[in-house]
Amino acid sequence: MSELIAFLEPDKAVIARRPEIIADLAGLVPGSCLITEERELVPFDTDAFVSYRRMPLAVVLPETTAQVAAVLKYCNDNAISVVPRGAGTSLSGGAIPQEDAIVIGVSKMNRIIEVDFPNRAAVVQAGVTNISISQAVDADGFFYAPDPSSQLACTIGGNIGMNSGGAHCLKYGVTTNNLLGVKMVMFDGSVVDIGGKALDSAGYDLLGLICGSEGQLGIVTEATVRLIAKPEGTRPVLFGFESSVSAGACVTDIIGAGIIPVAIEFMDKPAIEICEAFAKAGYPMDVDALLIVEVEGSDAEMDAMLERIIEIARRHNVKTIRESQSATEAALIWKGRKSAFGATGRIADYICMDGTVPLGQLSHVLAKTSEIIDHYGLRVANVFHAGDGNMHPLILFDANDPEESRKAELAGNDILKLCVDAGGCLTGEHGVGIEKRDLMRHQYAEVDLVQQMRVRAAFDPKWILNPSKVFPLEGRCGGLAEPGDAGPDHGKAAA
Amino acid sequence: MSELIAFLEPDKAVIARRPEIIADLAGLVPGSCLITEERELVPFDTDAFVSYRRMPLAVVLPETTAQVAAVLKYCNDNAISVVPRGAGTSLSGGAIPQEDAIVIGVSKMNRIIEVDFPNRAAVVQAGVTNISISQAVDADGFFYAPDPSSQLACTIGGNIGMNSGGAHCLKYGVTTNNLLGVKMVMFDGSVVDIGGKALDSAGYDLLGLICGSEGQLGIVTEATVRLIAKPEGTRPVLFGFESSVSAGACVTDIIGAGIIPVAIEFMDKPAIEICEAFAKAGYPMDVDALLIVEVEGSDAEMDAMLERIIEIARRHNVKTIRESQSATEAALIWKGRKSAFGATGRIADYICMDGTVPLGQLSHVLAKTSEIIDHYGLRVANVFHAGDGNMHPLILFDANDPEESRKAELAGNDILKLCVDAGGCLTGEHGVGIEKRDLMRHQYAEVDLVQQMRVRAAFDPKWILNPSKVFPLEGRCGGLAEPGDAGPDHGKAAA
Repeated sequence: MSELIAFLEPDKAVIARRPEIIADLAGLVPGSCLITEERELVPFDTDAFVSYRRMPLAVVLPETTAQVAAVLKYCNDNAISVVPRGAGTSLSGGAIPQEDAIVIGVSKMNRIIEVDFPNRAAVVQAGVTNISISQAVDADGFFYAPDPSSQLACTIGGNIGMNSGGAHCLKYGVTTNNLLGVKMVMFDGSVVDIGGKALDSAGYDLLGLICGSEGQLGIVTEATVRLIAKPEGTRPVLFGFESSVSAGACVTDIIGAGIIPVAIEFMDKPAIEICEAFAKAGYPMDVDALLIVEVEGSDAEMDAMLERIIEIARRHNVKTIRESQSATEAALIWKGRKSAFGATGRIADYICMDGTVPLGQLSHVLAKTSEIIDHYGLRVANVFHAGDGNMHPLILFDANDPEESRKAELAGNDILKLCVDAGGCLTGEHGVGIEKRDLMRHQYAEVDLVQQMRVRAAFDPKWILNPSKVFPLEGRCGGLAEPGDAGPDHGKAAA
Repeated sequence: MSELIAFLEPDKAVIARRPEIIADLAGLVPGSCLITEERELVPFDTDAFVSYRRMPLAVVLPETTAQVAAVLKYCNDNAISVVPRGAGTSLSGGAIPQEDAIVIGVSKMNRIIEVDFPNRAAVVQAGVTNISISQAVDADGFFYAPDPSSQLACTIGGNIGMNSGGAHCLKYGVTTNNLLGVKMVMFDGSVVDIGGKALDSAGYDLLGLICGSEGQLGIVTEATVRLIAKPEGTRPVLFGFESSVSAGACVTDIIGAGIIPVAIEFMDKPAIEICEAFAKAGYPMDVDALLIVEVEGSDAEMDAMLERIIEIARRHNVKTIRESQSATEAALIWKGRKSAFGATGRIADYICMDGTVPLGQLSHVLAKTSEIIDHYGLRVANVFHAGDGNMHPLILFDANDPEESRKAELAGNDILKLCVDAGGCLTGEHGVGIEKRDLMRHQYAEVDLVQQMRVRAAFDPKWILNPSKVFPLEGRCGGLAEPGDAGPDHGKAAA
């Protein structure tokens, strides 16, 4: 892969002090929590955005909030960069370290602390996997709603960092809509509790701000999340269309009618072929676009909602309608969709874009995406959360061909700019990370970016937390070289 | 009313420059937008928290975002305090001005700019009333969910400032859960657009931060809000209980079973009597506590949900169950509840508390509230959003009796501390304002408050925006006397 994206220049003075820093860290956490051997550091040199790799200076996997606090305070006191990490499933490079940085991973903090049904809440450590929360309350008839494709592996801490979504977020919202509180370690090692089980908070809503802040405002060590009662039943239904335009228009009309199914997933022809070959989900092969619409509730409720949806689909000349007739068939339909990334990875290298668009723009953006891909002579498969307008074009390429790799990155950038120009946004659920960092100026005016950087500086005055991410490297206010000098007035000067 | 709460000392130098300032403002907005005559300023000297009154230096009612920007920039350049105002319905004194402050009211910016059903969104100016959004989309089968009791008068700008709720927020959430974007004027007159119709935002979630920030981070002039399809039908049902303890335990069990009605409202004996005398809603008079549970959907859905709720209510020895049999009867049930504040105002002066508690604590907090009220020799009526744990004890007193007034304020403080001590929070939907400002130290540790003040300083370096509110006057970082000096390090020094 070519490297279009720059990292911050590593701090040579920090790297030179590596033995001393490792000795200091060994005084802060048990030996079993500290990784310093090169061979053992390799698994931490990238995340699921595998295009870029950087070795960290060391990895710390604390077992307690107090250990996280001790390490973060040490790093801040010594102006050493920190890269927080969950399970390393970030698709935007949010957890990729660099040579002068300490990775603080929360994977050992994987305990479910409390389940509290009257308050519809679970309190968990940041390293629990997404799926394990639902598993812990399944027998009592509850679940945790956001369901990223990586839910078997990804941690709730990472989900909070990236404000992760999933196929079922159309009805239930993304992480921020299901998060009630966090325990967070601040840059100086102080520990704050934000939000909680009770409604609302006095003062500012720092919880909303923390969610999606990509590990730059502190390190979350515990989370209180919303539990939801499982519906009586669920039923995914396949709708096949003659064109992506018809399928897109159908989605717009469903939502425009005020109907909110649990999920509306979209797959174009290449995505259908790739997923069917892998999962044998029984998808219809004679259509150009497929919607998976999932409804839930009692049989009567599902029937009533489906009746309205089918009526709308008919107006868009739907070719195939197939309701799942059993739990097995329903699971198979979802297996096909959820294996899209893995199945694509078997036939080609790919990068997955994550732009969102207002719903009326779906068909336009799909058509323009095709044009962009044709321009670069590449291939694309579209499989995404259509009800939310959250596009996921998978750009296929050969990573061994540097020129094609470069073209794939350029095409991805063009597609994200297209989403922004259509009134949308660079990212729906994968975060900015390093991948979209340099596109932030396309999304935001200088005044917007400066304001976000002012907020960042109010949480991390030395800019030690995940410093290569989110904000373009040029024109940062304050910057790493001037600790504590990134306050409001400095930000203004940078504007 | 006694004055337990201090305001900031007005800036005499600013007051001395009043003629000059008024002349300057007259150059920034049309004459019809500027109020300076004492007689015309009186309506702006308080809000619905009528216990405190302060005359403003002048009132500006701009007609455009550009005018708001010009006035705010002028005030910032000249270090003049600004108090943003919607309709002045704040119950926590959030819109009470002071002698050296310019009120910027958004009431003239009351246009619905766009309705966009495919994106489930309406774009409105900040001065539209809450109810007018629902009215504008009613014929198309949609509504805007948060419904404060003051919804006929209160503005969406004020709702955003206070993160307002309402009786139906149990299912649909409060303002922050229904807000998609804002246009906001910053302290320096720059205008930023935050969020929008597309899912999520790249970078930090400033939208969540703005919502509930009580006019201290900027002045919102436009909002994009979520529209929701109206349900097929709704049905409020009355459940009468022999004691508040039984009613509270019933609420806990309903929510604990994963059932989320649209609303669960609670009224104790005094509240029932006051509301029934006023509204003739047909409430049962032989019970000690009443729940209004509203379900919605098709008849079959409502029947199914009610069956489960009734089963739980029977376990708590429910005495009376009455389903509304007609739209007229349903409206009457709600009229009784929604007139609670007005009906109480007819028989006594009152202050309304707004603490929230985790659901399991409802019965405990109700019992302790009684003890506190008895201790001060006062009376209380409890009428509140029980499903959310959002308590609203109305403390009755005689405002002409200074000693009783003082006791009412002290009792209110004790009740809010009780909510915090039970794991809850000072405010569910009314905001901190000036009313709960000095209790913030009971809710938050110093490190929490300092962090919130750091964020404030990142948006308003001179602390000109609504300065007497939210944060205790003692120990503020930077403070008004040191413009621009309230950045991160300064905040740290204050800690």
